[in-house]
Amino acid sequence: MAGQATKWVYEFSEGSKEMRDLLGGKGSGVAEMTRVLGEDKVPAGFTITTDACVAYMEAGREEPEGLEEQVAEALADLEKKTGKKLGDDDDPLLVSVRSGARESMPGMMDTVLNLGLGDRSVEGLAKKTENERFAWDSYRRFVQMFGNVCRGVPGEKIEDAIKRRKRDAGVKDDTELSVDDLKGLVDDFKALYRDVTDEDFPQDPQEQLAQAIRAVFDSWDSPRAKEYRRINHIPDQWGTAVNVQQMVFGNKGDTSCSGVAFSRDEITGAPEPSGDYLVNAQGEDVVSGVRTPRDISEMKEQMPEAYSDLMDILKTLESHYKDMQDTEFTVEEEHLYMLQTRNAKRPAQAAVRFAVDAVNEGLLTKEEALATIHADKLDALLHPTFEANADYDVLAKGVSASPGAAKGEIVFTADDAVTASAAGRDVVLVRPFTEADDVAGFFAAKGIVTSEGGKASHAALVARGMGRPAVTGASALEIDLGSKEVRVNGTVLHEGDRIALDGTTGEVTVDDVPLVDPEVDENFEQILEWADEIRRLGVRANADTPEDACRAREFGAEGIGLCRTEHMFMAADRQPKMRAMIMAESEEDRREALGNLLPLQQKDFEGLFEAMEDLPVTIRLLDPPLHEFLPDLEEISQQVERARIERTPDLEDLEHTLERIHSLHETNPMLGTRGVRLGIIHPEIYAMQVQAIVRAAKAVTERCGRAPLIEIMIPLVAYERELQKMRKLVEKVVADENGGELEVQVGTMIELPRACFVADRIAQEADFFSFGTNDLTQTALGFSRDDVEGGFLSRYMEDKVLDRSPFETIDKPGVGWLVRLAAWTGREAKPELKLGICGEHGGDPESIAFFDMAGLDYVSCSPYRVPIARVAAAQAQLG
Amino acid sequence: MAGQATKWVYEFSEGSKEMRDLLGGKGSGVAEMTRVLGEDKVPAGFTITTDACVAYMEAGREEPEGLEEQVAEALADLEKKTGKKLGDDDDPLLVSVRSGARESMPGMMDTVLNLGLGDRSVEGLAKKTENERFAWDSYRRFVQMFGNVCRGVPGEKIEDAIKRRKRDAGVKDDTELSVDDLKGLVDDFKALYRDVTDEDFPQDPQEQLAQAIRAVFDSWDSPRAKEYRRINHIPDQWGTAVNVQQMVFGNKGDTSCSGVAFSRDEITGAPEPSGDYLVNAQGEDVVSGVRTPRDISEMKEQMPEAYSDLMDILKTLESHYKDMQDTEFTVEEEHLYMLQTRNAKRPAQAAVRFAVDAVNEGLLTKEEALATIHADKLDALLHPTFEANADYDVLAKGVSASPGAAKGEIVFTADDAVTASAAGRDVVLVRPFTEADDVAGFFAAKGIVTSEGGKASHAALVARGMGRPAVTGASALEIDLGSKEVRVNGTVLHEGDRIALDGTTGEVTVDDVPLVDPEVDENFEQILEWADEIRRLGVRANADTPEDACRAREFGAEGIGLCRTEHMFMAADRQPKMRAMIMAESEEDRREALGNLLPLQQKDFEGLFEAMEDLPVTIRLLDPPLHEFLPDLEEISQQVERARIERTPDLEDLEHTLERIHSLHETNPMLGTRGVRLGIIHPEIYAMQVQAIVRAAKAVTERCGRAPLIEIMIPLVAYERELQKMRKLVEKVVADENGGELEVQVGTMIELPRACFVADRIAQEADFFSFGTNDLTQTALGFSRDDVEGGFLSRYMEDKVLDRSPFETIDKPGVGWLVRLAAWTGREAKPELKLGICGEHGGDPESIAFFDMAGLDYVSCSPYRVPIARVAAAQAQLG
Repeated sequence: MAGQATKWVYEFSEGSKEMRDLLGGKGSGVAEMTRVLGEDKVPAGFTITTDACVAYMEAGREEPEGLEEQVAEALADLEKKTGKKLGDDDDPLLVSVRSGARESMPGMMDTVLNLGLGDRSVEGLAKKTENERFAWDSYRRFVQMFGNVCRGVPGEKIEDAIKRRKRDAGVKDDTELSVDDLKGLVDDFKALYRDVTDEDFPQDPQEQLAQAIRAVFDSWDSPRAKEYRRINHIPDQWGTAVNVQQMVFGNKGDTSCSGVAFSRDEITGAPEPSGDYLVNAQGEDVVSGVRTPRDISEMKEQMPEAYSDLMDILKTLESHYKDMQDTEFTVEEEHLYMLQTRNAKRPAQAAVRFAVDAVNEGLLTKEEALATIHADKLDALLHPTFEANADYDVLAKGVSASPGAAKGEIVFTADDAVTASAAGRDVVLVRPFTEADDVAGFFAAKGIVTSEGGKASHAALVARGMGRPAVTGASALEIDLGSKEVRVNGTVLHEGDRIALDGTTGEVTVDDVPLVDPEVDENFEQILEWADEIRRLGVRANADTPEDACRAREFGAEGIGLCRTEHMFMAADRQPKMRAMIMAESEEDRREALGNLLPLQQKDFEGLFEAMEDLPVTIRLLDPPLHEFLPDLEEISQQVERARIERTPDLEDLEHTLERIHSLHETNPMLGTRGVRLGIIHPEIYAMQVQAIVRAAKAVTERCGRAPLIEIMIPLVAYERELQKMRKLVEKVVADENGGELEVQVGTMIELPRACFVADRIAQEADFFSFGTNDLTQTALGFSRDDVEGGFLSRYMEDKVLDRSPFETIDKPGVGWLVRLAAWTGREAKPELKLGICGEHGGDPESIAFFDMAGLDYVSCSPYRVPIARVAAAQAQLG
Repeated sequence: MAGQATKWVYEFSEGSKEMRDLLGGKGSGVAEMTRVLGEDKVPAGFTITTDACVAYMEAGREEPEGLEEQVAEALADLEKKTGKKLGDDDDPLLVSVRSGARESMPGMMDTVLNLGLGDRSVEGLAKKTENERFAWDSYRRFVQMFGNVCRGVPGEKIEDAIKRRKRDAGVKDDTELSVDDLKGLVDDFKALYRDVTDEDFPQDPQEQLAQAIRAVFDSWDSPRAKEYRRINHIPDQWGTAVNVQQMVFGNKGDTSCSGVAFSRDEITGAPEPSGDYLVNAQGEDVVSGVRTPRDISEMKEQMPEAYSDLMDILKTLESHYKDMQDTEFTVEEEHLYMLQTRNAKRPAQAAVRFAVDAVNEGLLTKEEALATIHADKLDALLHPTFEANADYDVLAKGVSASPGAAKGEIVFTADDAVTASAAGRDVVLVRPFTEADDVAGFFAAKGIVTSEGGKASHAALVARGMGRPAVTGASALEIDLGSKEVRVNGTVLHEGDRIALDGTTGEVTVDDVPLVDPEVDENFEQILEWADEIRRLGVRANADTPEDACRAREFGAEGIGLCRTEHMFMAADRQPKMRAMIMAESEEDRREALGNLLPLQQKDFEGLFEAMEDLPVTIRLLDPPLHEFLPDLEEISQQVERARIERTPDLEDLEHTLERIHSLHETNPMLGTRGVRLGIIHPEIYAMQVQAIVRAAKAVTERCGRAPLIEIMIPLVAYERELQKMRKLVEKVVADENGGELEVQVGTMIELPRACFVADRIAQEADFFSFGTNDLTQTALGFSRDDVEGGFLSRYMEDKVLDRSPFETIDKPGVGWLVRLAAWTGREAKPELKLGICGEHGGDPESIAFFDMAGLDYVSCSPYRVPIARVAAAQAQLG
């Protein structure tokens, strides 16, 4: 390109749908329609590239060299093509100036219509069209929009002026205003313009165009646009294109209209087009809601020819784009013009129905159909929700921590949840935050609400793991555990009061909202079947109970990728036994306490093995630091102090408990004595767990005549010798228990950076690796999940240090490299090494695509994410 | 080697000093001496390789194929060479069978002397040597040693038998026993042998030899040998060689002797040979201490010829080996034989003196001289110690946490230490463990003793950083902070009692031991000068105060590589101001509190800059989590409870404090809101620190006419945008303060695995990287330093999961790779990027060699380690 100026401007006829990055969604859509539908169906125009916007921004809001000239040239071509001149006194060309980024950002950026009018050309337009009202309506719209968009004339002042004119004229609707009323409005708007800018409204159409282009560029950096991008993960560096297009007029009387149309029903996906239109109106009237639009089906009667034309075009576009289309159109005196087309955003059920129908209609192949689905959104189909049209007041809004909706009576402690649930009552556990102690309460409750914490808080993680709906960080709730009250905006709720939450939206209400059950209909089943045909990655589930395991199998899990044995110790009746094990001060006492846990653990494993039949079950031996199972330091400290002051007889016991908490306390438990380190210090714990596994397997084999496939997983390995020792321990216990016939593999979680660097050595001792990407993220980034969510992580995302939470989508440059490194060197050392991943990323479509590429054998995620993972895994293969 | 059997046996004449790995230290030494001194100075023999030992171990204590034959062959050769036959009735060949690993493991493994004797050949020997006493003394020694070493006859039973015989004979010394007594002893030992083994003492010399070889192999895996290897980081996989050598006899009367000789004084390094010898004795008598040996100088009178021979040989060996030699010799009837030579282990002062003398004598080049020094041991020359010959009772022994000795009155709190020290009293801070709160007490105390924690505990780290002697984990001390008492083995110590500690040995005593000041004598200076000529790596110091900075310069630091600004906030008078800053609940309050800290911080920086003149000063902005500066949760909880019960008026304040502690509390502070994360959330903190830096620099420039070289370091960066933001902040403050003339570089600590993977991107924003290998070790390995030392780390070393603490010597496969990766990609992105390391590994010689190889520019360590680092850096270059 040396010596050649950058091309900033493309005529529509030069573009195509492949040029989306450069021309934006709208620009490439209009260009493609021009090619596919012909020039008479699409008003002519040109697009200023996103690169021009980026150059403008980078230069500190200075138009790049050559832009002015290229716009002038393109305008001259447009004038030649239309036979009209911008600002012409007799027959003026009018244009729209619209934004259009790579990804649609609906309503976030600016648009100016009817540009090119002035005090003289409006008269020419009136004469030429023999429609004075139309001309003045167009002019007042232009002055209004230009003032508001390009120079910041406040919207409310504009609305006030219109209201005043309507009141004076005694009419209700804009369309009822007379020509004189409209002329008066133009004067009103000009006066407002002068007030705000200290300048007269510009009559030079070239000046109008230049300012409008600038305004669109600037709107890329408006606060609302930035906020939208932050939420939707759209990079600030993309910029917006600007589309300059000949105006066509839906406001030329009763044979004209403007509307939006979908090629299929945008809510259900049913194969009938849907949409709205407004007679005698411009496009923004349809969107703004000033007048109530009509359903597109009524057009068939009112404008049969344009309607039939539109139906044909929707079909053409759909098969051309191979996706459901969302279009804008205008009918000007019975002639249909298409202004925009794009792939329709749609809820999950519509996406699924379209995909299945499209294959059946021969429109798409299965592969193409799968690619149209946003896997992450399928979540909505897998959980109960509030009924869509239900009427209720939102009491508080928090973080969408775990999807699904639930209702029940308020309880404030895990113990109360267990008791009430045992008595057959539905309860919602309401707490400021939750801790390991509370897990029994999660089992018992229908849903969880907390006033603190975010998506990665303990409450959110445990709730998602168990498939319990949860709203976290609902900070409007003041929860007083002492008095068992929730105060919120003047209302006080007590234990036993009913409450409802929707973990998909983050809403909490006291109204009795009807819940809708999830519908895994035949379309969804069909999609999943196709996904299974295509995907290479296996999909397993993280499940700790037989119920979870059954749900996982229903959703199509091909095994359990992670059974967290510590969750088995958290049930209310087991905690005291677990505590006794931990408090044991001799190996002998500990062995005795372990003996009490053994039959319980064995029973759990039997349930799991029966549920999973001959599918593999990966069991992780005890992982968390022991003090997680002990009472709270602060609580016991205070009890000790009280006992000291009041000289109560339990002082000695309490002091002993406090001492034990001290001796087990760790400054950074995440990096302390847990995982395999426990196994090495207290081999008797792991030995008991393996015993329970082998005994359960033998019992199930006898009962069902089929042996389970067992994978024993050692967590937190950093050194190959750790695994070597534990492998020996496992093998010894299996032999001692006469479990020689069983298929027992031994592997490890790879969840520390060091393990990734020495994966080749660790592989020598392992039958499989399962990447623990939660912990790997914590260590690679130095982020304690418990602390940074609700801590600095949200600030980091606001400040754009990060685009998204590394706990949701895998951090590719850091954590991703570690995974690749370990997968690569591990396989090099042992080609048959099985590789999986069982962190939360196993349920995230973008991360799944990464794991597919990294060559893993399977992902494992919470049961409710299994269908999503199946679809995402198929999409990963499709690339 | 296909088709050819492994060579397991080498005759001495086949070996050399280069074959140490295969032949062991002794085997290669004897072989080399054979070559250098001639065969008549070294008794003939052969060596069985370490590989044979390894093969024997791996086969489950089974001799490898071919070994038996090769030994027989070598023995036949030996018999031919000596003209004698093993076990011959008339003139038997006697041999010694000695262990000899790659590294000397003195006294750890087994040896059998006089092998080849039996009931018949002893008579032949008597006749042939015309010395019946000698023959029977040799035989009883053999039966005694063989029984003990090869078959486990208990040493005490042997001693009892000897005692009984001496008592019966009425003599005091072994040499006074008659031939009949010795015969009786042989009978005694044979009886003991039968008792233990149920077998008769073997008369077949081949059988004796085979058993002795086995015994030496087995002794490699004896508990004491394993323990020794663990402590000295000798791999279990090396194995030991076995040396079979013709016996020569120091016990043939008054013209015979055995002894050990050093080529120079082994304590001082003075250039006169030193050593001990015993007339009419075998080598083990000299070592065992049964008789008191004479000083080697007395040999000059007693055996002038042998003495002069020995002196010549010592010189020859020293110049041949180019190192001080530690030898064993025997004089048999006036003929000198050399039995072993090896480089002499020696204390630091001897090592330094030898190195300097050797260069002056032309024996070694500077480079060769430097290579003879064990850099780590130089530490002993840099701290006061207990006087070497002082007589004192050890009250308790703990971990050698921070080197040096100190004495003073016991205090139990940091506050008391500050008060007493201000009053001019020397104090030792005695606590169960220490916390951030206590740091002011470290400044004030002469030394620190704790009953908990290890080498990486808070107390140890802070003490080493400040150069305060410390003993940690002295678990015999029961410290009761409530009653201010220390109970230990029945003694009770109170506040104000005097105590002394030696952090180099880990000893604590109440005796008034004299302390010896360190001596950086001219020899040491000379060594350091040579090191500076040779090394490529720069050496800086970690220093937070002007005093530290001055000490660092005295020790030759070329700059400050790490100034931890948080230490400046820990002085007793500043903590309340710091606390006010943290407790501030609005940005305004925080700014005010910061305003109070600013002048103090500025003064600190002025001191540092003045001390360092024009050397670079790297200042790390605030790093630790804020709650480290807050009161203890447990203490405040209990105060709240007390205030509640007693309804005291301070309840509200206390509750507020507790709430604030809660809100700042983090589950894993190491991975929480600290480092750059604080800087992004509270930019006003970093802004204040930069202000203080710039103002200090300007003041010092004005005062001294020379501007300091400032490097501002941002800790805990994981994302390039973090550094980008902080760089902008620093640049803005510098500009606002008119600091434009100053040389201010901005860089970052690389201390998170992610940072290493994106080092190329981070380098774009950085003038320098300084590797924070402490935190990098914590995150890469998932080891919380505070928790794992004293926790599972010692267990891991016992169990051989780890050979040494990764906090002492860098973990090369994990952390080392991260460092290399970041150094490599960082430099690739920015070739002029300055690279340093400021973790504790910066003072560890083995780690320094690694950093030199990884291409870093400098290491930074505690002031007291600077001389060691200078020597180690030179050695790294020498390879």
